[in-house]
Amino acid sequence: MQKLDLLYEGRTKRIFASENPDEIIIAFLDNTTAYRGLKKSFIPGKGAVNNRISNHLMRKIAGLGIPTHFIKEINDHETCVVKADIIPIAVVVRNIAAGSLAERLGLPEGMAFDKPIIEYYYKDASLGNPMINEYHITTLAWATEEELKTVADYSLRVNMFLSAYLIDLGIALIDLKLEFGKNKHGDILLADEISPDSCRLWDTKTHERLDKDRFRLDLDDVEDAYREILRRLLGN
Amino acid sequence: MQKLDLLYEGRTKRIFASENPDEIIIAFLDNTTAYRGLKKSFIPGKGAVNNRISNHLMRKIAGLGIPTHFIKEINDHETCVVKADIIPIAVVVRNIAAGSLAERLGLPEGMAFDKPIIEYYYKDASLGNPMINEYHITTLAWATEEELKTVADYSLRVNMFLSAYLIDLGIALIDLKLEFGKNKHGDILLADEISPDSCRLWDTKTHERLDKDRFRLDLDDVEDAYREILRRLLGN
Repeated sequence: MQKLDLLYEGRTKRIFASENPDEIIIAFLDNTTAYRGLKKSFIPGKGAVNNRISNHLMRKIAGLGIPTHFIKEINDHETCVVKADIIPIAVVVRNIAAGSLAERLGLPEGMAFDKPIIEYYYKDASLGNPMINEYHITTLAWATEEELKTVADYSLRVNMFLSAYLIDLGIALIDLKLEFGKNKHGDILLADEISPDSCRLWDTKTHERLDKDRFRLDLDDVEDAYREILRRLLGN
Repeated sequence: MQKLDLLYEGRTKRIFASENPDEIIIAFLDNTTAYRGLKKSFIPGKGAVNNRISNHLMRKIAGLGIPTHFIKEINDHETCVVKADIIPIAVVVRNIAAGSLAERLGLPEGMAFDKPIIEYYYKDASLGNPMINEYHITTLAWATEEELKTVADYSLRVNMFLSAYLIDLGIALIDLKLEFGKNKHGDILLADEISPDSCRLWDTKTHERLDKDRFRLDLDDVEDAYREILRRLLGN
């Protein structure tokens, strides 16, 4: 499969056109950033690990009947996906208090919620990706009420499935960030990636962090933690 | 009516016990504060004007069938209200972009919304009153789903009524902040105050600001603006 024009260069991914106008190619990079891009580094092999983790999980999620953008893995760090109009909202689902939520609301890190908390953020880096709610989204026409209902429903189902799937592998899903797009028919698809860059994943026994917080918090062995997630997913 | 113990001293109000355990007395002060208390001043007569504005509007709102905490005006700056358990949420209803919303989402000030936007803030000054959503509120048990539904319904009805009522007086209701409590039977009541301290009010012809933004933005004649609102409400 041939990569054509570079369509978009993000902090951790490049997006290329393909020969098929309905399909694009995501190239996962080894860059990592945190704190709105203020902290940056390079983790050799991270792109390939995230590509494989994300594709593995996208396949499982498609198996639940939730449409995803995944088409096929091209090589260890590149994947062909559906070209979708991205809904400009990051959906965060939280099962356990951590990170910005714990700080913002003064909750102890590790506090488990009786039911998941959904948060929405407006994807605009120049505004600092501000938190928004259903009223902002529908009134400002970032999504219709029906689309948002689908997004919330898919998000809760993905969270429920992943929580159960990962717990059997000794991994607690603390929270995750999801993004969605619409294909040319207007169907909502799960897009972006699902990886230790977009989820908080704690070892259930040791409570060790196996996700991007290792980088945020200056812990060592970031790459090993990501590889450990992939190893458990693939069962080897 | 006798004021007993001082129960609470806020930035712009004092709350006293009364001889009736189910009733408390609010004393409106002439203090004004903005930007989380960083900017402070004293506006002689403001407390009395806000007391009279708020009581006038609370009476009108009660007439719509929305329960309020208002019982009776004691004197020009003191009012007897129902003692209620305050729900720790500030509800902001926005009809037109202004203030923090315009800044946060990069919207032009004065942009009218097709339908009102509701925002919720957690009333905890030590956390900076962070924005929250329905999931935080119900999961963290600050209100039940049913209570929150009532709060949202009352808020939209108050906003709709006030918008229509004020427009006839040449005043555009840009946004307003509401707070609610529960009486001893668990009924939800509109509490706190409705005044130029808690609403943005613009003259429909001149677009002049007749609210606390005059203080926030260092405009002159803050007191005159508040008095002008009271004058129009009382029709004299």
